[in-house]
Amino acid sequence: MSEPLRLQGISASAGYAEGPLFDLDRIAVSYVGKETADDEKAALETAIAIAAGRLTVLIEMAVGDAADILEFQIAMLGDDALSSPAFARIQAGERADQAWRQALDAEIAGYDASDQDYFRARAADIRDIRDQVLRALSEDGDVQAPAGAIFYGEDIAPTRFFETDWSCGGGIALKAGSTASHVAMLARSRGVPMVVGLGASLAHLAGTALLDAEHGGIVLSPSKAEIAAFRQSSSSFWARRDQAGTFLARPAVTKAGTMVRVQVNIADPSDVDSIDIATCDGVGLMRTEFLFGKTLPDEETQYRSYRKVLEWAGDRPVTIRTVDAGGDKPVPGFTVEESNPFLGLRGIRLSLARPEVFRVQIRALLRAAVHGNLKVMFPMIAIVEEYRQAAAMFAEEQAALAARGIANKMPPLGIMVEVPSVAIVPEAFADAAFFSIGSNDLTQYVMAAARDNAAVAHLNSVRHPAVLRLIAAVTAYGQREKIPVSLCGDAGGDPASIPALIEAGLRDLSVAPAQLAMAKAAIADVSV
Amino acid sequence: MSEPLRLQGISASAGYAEGPLFDLDRIAVSYVGKETADDEKAALETAIAIAAGRLTVLIEMAVGDAADILEFQIAMLGDDALSSPAFARIQAGERADQAWRQALDAEIAGYDASDQDYFRARAADIRDIRDQVLRALSEDGDVQAPAGAIFYGEDIAPTRFFETDWSCGGGIALKAGSTASHVAMLARSRGVPMVVGLGASLAHLAGTALLDAEHGGIVLSPSKAEIAAFRQSSSSFWARRDQAGTFLARPAVTKAGTMVRVQVNIADPSDVDSIDIATCDGVGLMRTEFLFGKTLPDEETQYRSYRKVLEWAGDRPVTIRTVDAGGDKPVPGFTVEESNPFLGLRGIRLSLARPEVFRVQIRALLRAAVHGNLKVMFPMIAIVEEYRQAAAMFAEEQAALAARGIANKMPPLGIMVEVPSVAIVPEAFADAAFFSIGSNDLTQYVMAAARDNAAVAHLNSVRHPAVLRLIAAVTAYGQREKIPVSLCGDAGGDPASIPALIEAGLRDLSVAPAQLAMAKAAIADVSV
Repeated sequence: MSEPLRLQGISASAGYAEGPLFDLDRIAVSYVGKETADDEKAALETAIAIAAGRLTVLIEMAVGDAADILEFQIAMLGDDALSSPAFARIQAGERADQAWRQALDAEIAGYDASDQDYFRARAADIRDIRDQVLRALSEDGDVQAPAGAIFYGEDIAPTRFFETDWSCGGGIALKAGSTASHVAMLARSRGVPMVVGLGASLAHLAGTALLDAEHGGIVLSPSKAEIAAFRQSSSSFWARRDQAGTFLARPAVTKAGTMVRVQVNIADPSDVDSIDIATCDGVGLMRTEFLFGKTLPDEETQYRSYRKVLEWAGDRPVTIRTVDAGGDKPVPGFTVEESNPFLGLRGIRLSLARPEVFRVQIRALLRAAVHGNLKVMFPMIAIVEEYRQAAAMFAEEQAALAARGIANKMPPLGIMVEVPSVAIVPEAFADAAFFSIGSNDLTQYVMAAARDNAAVAHLNSVRHPAVLRLIAAVTAYGQREKIPVSLCGDAGGDPASIPALIEAGLRDLSVAPAQLAMAKAAIADVSV
Repeated sequence: MSEPLRLQGISASAGYAEGPLFDLDRIAVSYVGKETADDEKAALETAIAIAAGRLTVLIEMAVGDAADILEFQIAMLGDDALSSPAFARIQAGERADQAWRQALDAEIAGYDASDQDYFRARAADIRDIRDQVLRALSEDGDVQAPAGAIFYGEDIAPTRFFETDWSCGGGIALKAGSTASHVAMLARSRGVPMVVGLGASLAHLAGTALLDAEHGGIVLSPSKAEIAAFRQSSSSFWARRDQAGTFLARPAVTKAGTMVRVQVNIADPSDVDSIDIATCDGVGLMRTEFLFGKTLPDEETQYRSYRKVLEWAGDRPVTIRTVDAGGDKPVPGFTVEESNPFLGLRGIRLSLARPEVFRVQIRALLRAAVHGNLKVMFPMIAIVEEYRQAAAMFAEEQAALAARGIANKMPPLGIMVEVPSVAIVPEAFADAAFFSIGSNDLTQYVMAAARDNAAVAHLNSVRHPAVLRLIAAVTAYGQREKIPVSLCGDAGGDPASIPALIEAGLRDLSVAPAQLAMAKAAIADVSV
């Protein structure tokens, strides 16, 4: 029997899976060449149509995020800019499959070479489109993965994700990948275990594997003892998850009876369609980067988006964060290229540098505020002058709206606590209406370890004493000065981190909707 | 009279200059085309030879860093890989000047597009080579700058720097540029005022300008009041600098009689050739990245370099930092490409990930330790396990050397305090023999503002209360636990920051050799 092989990556979706490895990088596609260039052209056209048809069927089965991804892929497939290089190659005498692969690979290389996590994550979509069409071109279809397989490879196609029946178990283990990819988002919302960033490894892996996507590891050729320990961890995890459902409808209370507010983080107004407002205490973080997709959004579009969520939430608070572009969230025409974007012109820095864009958002927020319980917070505040400048712009825009007789309301203005300088000297920010700790960024700055870099993932832990000490200090300061403090980073929804956060004094967490039940269950287990 | 125009950048070399602007981007070169391709080829060969000849003359006038830069440029000029595309273009019918410009511009674009500050800084050298040859090709020579001019443009050529007579004043104001460029290093060592990162600006600037390179600004069309205030700041600055010389030979003492140790930072063993050891208390930081230039260095080369500095210092301490590659210091074949290198696999992280490279350095240090008062420190420590792992490797290598009968000595092993986690929880590092605060990195992480990014330079200040609070906490912890604490970032040599550092409790600073006198003078002015 061979030695156990252990690979460590980053958890992209918690869970456990035990099953045969299915090597994604070894899928062979066979295509039979045609007689003439016209026939090759026709074959590619047909294949693109078949692929688009399959995607349309998948859309009907999908909802929310998933449908968006597939619609994006269909739109790409219909884009001549993507296919015309392939048709040009066919005209020049290439076979349809080679022409398509070469043309798409060139496109993929462009995305892969980007410094920006966002664009690199999109490379997976283009790869998926490439493989969908190649699959449609080939005669003998695709190699089927066995039920309960653990998909292993460079990256995985979203369509592969949809076509797989996850009810029999299974999971995803990627050499590269990103926790920000479409598939990672899908895996989290569907509860499919997934690990990314395992790194380049031995040439070919096969056999049964143990995927521990709670801690981000995978073991091949495990020993008997390892299998036994794995199964115990696994059943304990799924038992916790099953139980969690019963906690969803109840308020979150610890063993000792401490009440904890649990709000949700949303990234798009449509996210609220699948959330029962009765299961949460409001929206602790509504991101607004979604508005800044292809063009800079107009005031009316923003106003309608904010109003939709405010009306859905009723009298519960909705905390909207002004646009946090930059970092790993580039916006064409707005953000700038930088050698260290996480330490660059992002969040409030960019909004203050581009006041004409910021003021549009401010007006939309002031107008939407009359429709519910709005709170507004600024991302990436580092020095108090930034807060004061932003607050002054709110006051100016409010006066201007009032002068024009337009309905508006000044919301409480708070700040994200994610730059260490704020957490170290919170008393400088006594003017802020509330603090919201952004644990992802705070951790990466305190540990000087980028949160999307697998090579330093071992350093990036919210449970490091230095991070917890800052969180406790900010919370204590807030209690003393009656400034509400919440936390809206991923740590808030992580059962392994929740006890430490409650012990640090936090009584207000905001989590991804999919983590709501597990978070409440984890809180019920805390003895503080 | 036109309105005053103020531009803000980053100080690359402190000082003041008042003088006519000289637009570097508007230098016209006129070249008269030849009859045949052979004549064009001959003209280019001659021009390259003339340019190389001029560089050789400049080398004789230059010392240290300056000579290295020029030697690098001559080596580039002699490299066929650089010139052969130009000769190919001439063969294809282009004029010598166009062929050369096109070929070099392509090369420059490659460097400019790099994510790495280091490579982008090298683009200036290639630009210089390009312009040197174009100048040699042209008949009517170069446009001369007036005496005392302030050179203004995208970037400035090192040869331009050498050819300028700075004894009449003058300065440098760059739209782009980098504080890490060759010219920035030269400007600091020669005391030429220089500002970088002023940003793209109005089409054409002319007239008299006030360059305040102490605070990183420039004013055009100044008002009378501005001129008067500027002259006062300027004369006060130069008076301080002149006085400083008298402090060089004395120990550093504050007004209140507090002794402060002042050591030097060096980047290359040859740096010590121009330092009188009697003027400093030792070497607070010897970088070792210079060893990792083109290839990974062997043990013998390292041993000799370390020994040279140890023998020069006698019984004074020499603190050598193990290699701090990564971040803005890439090493081909050693560091990796990352989207946020400052938050990536750098410093001790990289050394621990590449133990076979690290152990060579460890052996060289253990052997060199017998020749002086060596201390060794690890860069980018974030968690105590990193320190323990590195210390264990020192112990293992020492045992191995001893077993082979090779002379060696275990130096005290300390850590850089630059990752916030260490400064926030210093008690976790009680095993370290000493702490050396790296204020540049500590500041950029605490403020989440990259130190080489002009767009966030307003946030990157060591004097922010959060940074000073951490420095004071580490210093207090060290005093309590009898762990020596020093500081080796740029702040230690900055007269504007020194009072705050002394007030924070520091009594041990390490500064660039060129800043030694000013630092001692600034200490003498502190009342603590």
